Amino acid sequence: MFQLTVLYGQPQDTEAFDRYYEQTHAPLALKIPGLKGYTAARGASINPQENSPYYLIAILYFDSQEAMGAAFESPEGHAAAGDVQNFATGGVTMLAGGVQIYDPVSLG
Amino acid sequence: MFQLTVLYGQPQDTEAFDRYYEQTHAPLALKIPGLKGYTAARGASINPQENSPYYLIAILYFDSQEAMGAAFESPEGHAAAGDVQNFATGGVTMLAGGVQIYDPVSLG
Repeated sequence: MFQLTVLYGQPQDTEAFDRYYEQTHAPLALKIPGLKGYTAARGASINPQENSPYYLIAILYFDSQEAMGAAFESPEGHAAAGDVQNFATGGVTMLAGGVQIYDPVSLG
Repeated sequence: MFQLTVLYGQPQDTEAFDRYYEQTHAPLALKIPGLKGYTAARGASINPQENSPYYLIAILYFDSQEAMGAAFESPEGHAAAGDVQNFATGGVTMLAGGVQIYDPVSLG
């Protein structure tokens, strides 16, 4: 399995971010061909004295690096990637790599 | 589901990091009570012109925030958390929050 990790920085307006993400961005991301799984988690710091650099951590799974590459060359992939600038007011960091599964989990 | 995201910065020696992580840290993490799933993915930047801030992205799943809290108050949780300083030479950022599942996935 291959993982795309999308780290969203703290947005200017969290309510507007959440609304746009739920109503517009997630539906676009779900259309990406070859998508094998997709989650998003809040990113609060576990140290109460520290602010978290990230508001949301989205993870998209693909079968392989090649499958992810093909996905983002498709029109649906372009649409989802191009949409990020419409709401990621706190910036975004995208990282990708192979996944090692230490303890199996079923999500959903 | 509740997600702990552990972002490991680029270590001084990636080979030493990998060896320690596989042989020592992952086995300790697997002993954390209440752990419901555990993965780790490489974090290469998707933009070839950019260096990635993170080398490894570990994700630990728990049933709830309370379950995660209890897990890290246990001796096994203390041991795993305390071990991080032994190998995370590039620093570590730990974030936690509830997970939204947009597209179900079975890992493992």
